[in-house]
Amino acid sequence: MTEDEIVAAISALCQPEPAQRRRTAPRVFLGVGDDAALWQPSRSHRSAISSDMLVENVDFTRESMSLEDAGWRAMAANLSDLAAMGARPHLATVALGMPQATIAGEILELYRGVAACAKTYQVAIAGGDLSRAPVLTIAITVVGEVRATSAKTRAGGRPGDVLAVTGPLGAARAGLEIAREAAPISDELKTEALAAFRHPQPRIAEGRFLAASRNVRAMIDLSDGLSTDLARLAAASGCGAEVQTVPVAEPARALASLRGEPPEVFTLAGGEDFELLAAVGARAFGHLAARYAARFSRPLLAVGVLREGVEIAWNGAPLRRTGWDHFAR
Amino acid sequence: MTEDEIVAAISALCQPEPAQRRRTAPRVFLGVGDDAALWQPSRSHRSAISSDMLVENVDFTRESMSLEDAGWRAMAANLSDLAAMGARPHLATVALGMPQATIAGEILELYRGVAACAKTYQVAIAGGDLSRAPVLTIAITVVGEVRATSAKTRAGGRPGDVLAVTGPLGAARAGLEIAREAAPISDELKTEALAAFRHPQPRIAEGRFLAASRNVRAMIDLSDGLSTDLARLAAASGCGAEVQTVPVAEPARALASLRGEPPEVFTLAGGEDFELLAAVGARAFGHLAARYAARFSRPLLAVGVLREGVEIAWNGAPLRRTGWDHFAR
Repeated sequence: MTEDEIVAAISALCQPEPAQRRRTAPRVFLGVGDDAALWQPSRSHRSAISSDMLVENVDFTRESMSLEDAGWRAMAANLSDLAAMGARPHLATVALGMPQATIAGEILELYRGVAACAKTYQVAIAGGDLSRAPVLTIAITVVGEVRATSAKTRAGGRPGDVLAVTGPLGAARAGLEIAREAAPISDELKTEALAAFRHPQPRIAEGRFLAASRNVRAMIDLSDGLSTDLARLAAASGCGAEVQTVPVAEPARALASLRGEPPEVFTLAGGEDFELLAAVGARAFGHLAARYAARFSRPLLAVGVLREGVEIAWNGAPLRRTGWDHFAR
Repeated sequence: MTEDEIVAAISALCQPEPAQRRRTAPRVFLGVGDDAALWQPSRSHRSAISSDMLVENVDFTRESMSLEDAGWRAMAANLSDLAAMGARPHLATVALGMPQATIAGEILELYRGVAACAKTYQVAIAGGDLSRAPVLTIAITVVGEVRATSAKTRAGGRPGDVLAVTGPLGAARAGLEIAREAAPISDELKTEALAAFRHPQPRIAEGRFLAASRNVRAMIDLSDGLSTDLARLAAASGCGAEVQTVPVAEPARALASLRGEPPEVFTLAGGEDFELLAAVGARAFGHLAARYAARFSRPLLAVGVLREGVEIAWNGAPLRRTGWDHFAR
């Protein structure tokens, strides 16, 4: 296949089904196949953009997930960044680098995962690029929109704010480790862990819900692990923090217990859960958590508080950043 | 350096100088360092987006250019795609993959090139990503704006339209080959060729000028070579074409002559000139070319015409696509 033939096949895969075209979305006038894509931004919103690169053998391996899963995950990781701003994603570009030996079937399998995630979250794939690369390399950029009054950065937290997460953590790390090496935990927990790792759900609706509250003052998505991302939110907000409770997902608890490792320690270091961490005004937290539970049928879980200063404390000692850092390892 | 420290250093490099902040540009509210960047799109324009991935040893080598040049070129290649739509670029995200052995100095050198090109064309670097990768991998996404009535695709050309390019071609290919292997051509031509290859100038102003004319019906940028990109524009416009003149840049003529190769053949296969190819209504061409020459002090060069049918002809024979194809080679 030539480059143009592959682009044509991908283009067919990325066509939205008519039923899925939203009336409320900014209309994409021109997508895959021209020099650039064009859309009409909405007049009342700010635009938001985020880019992520996933690299084979660094961010995923073919042994631990299918190419379709890798494609899903690449798109989900990007959408999670927009979720953390409170933005609604609208369109994406996908640049793909692949080795000489890659066959068209593999490219399309990867793209099927990208397109499935995009469709689930109503995101139009508007363009991209294909290149040779030594390993599969997926660089996705997503564009979304958010009301100026709703957009949340990492920087708005204040001492006393409750730090809360949108769900229990550690399942994706458990899934990564189970995918690498079999572990004697129940099939049900295995399935849950592998799904969290291979098929993460970006918290778009949760992010928009939280962003709409003026008592939510800062947000970040948990891509690199609670110990690392909580420290980032606190630092951006000019605060320290105390971690009081680490909400451990069941598969993480089972796997850590099996190894005799404290489940909280396992979970603090686990990345890629793609839950959101928010700083919420303390007096508003109870009411917001109740509304959140009613809306999403899951609890909004308090994990700690922001404090004056710069220290991040846990169990009476400084908390080390044990999450993912591409450069420290 | 940790990931956060590298991000901080890059962030400092990407700060626009106050004098360079344009009053007319959509204001970027939030840039490098949060989950996503935010900006206010202008109300009267459509937004345009394009992504490109450049990979070491595929799209560039460290032997043939400095990392600063590679960074410039990556940004320039992206901006060229927006130029081909007639759009004005406003902001960019930069995702960078790099090998374990890469030192902070190298990352910053690459970023200096990216930032220099962005500043030259008044583009804000609004965000990005850092990852490990087996070789240097630069994925850039640029966002710009264009009036709905000005935006040009590849698809608007009609039989009879004059095909014209914004400048002579082949210098970048000559530069690539001279960078690989010394050639006995004059120092002046060498310098010109290497500059075209290492420091290309995206034709933003030229693209906006041409796009403002309703007699310009289609545009594409010449990234993969005239023989390939002209065929793409013709195909997207549902036309065939006849190539009548190949405007050969002086360094390309000198290098081809040295080898006894027809300069036109050399130039038809040469990629990455980043000039624009436009389809212009035949009756309007003379007037437009005169205005173009007055504005840019360079000629708008006719290379051929669009025809009925699907054939691309040159010198009385079908023209093969000899330009760059990542997958055919």
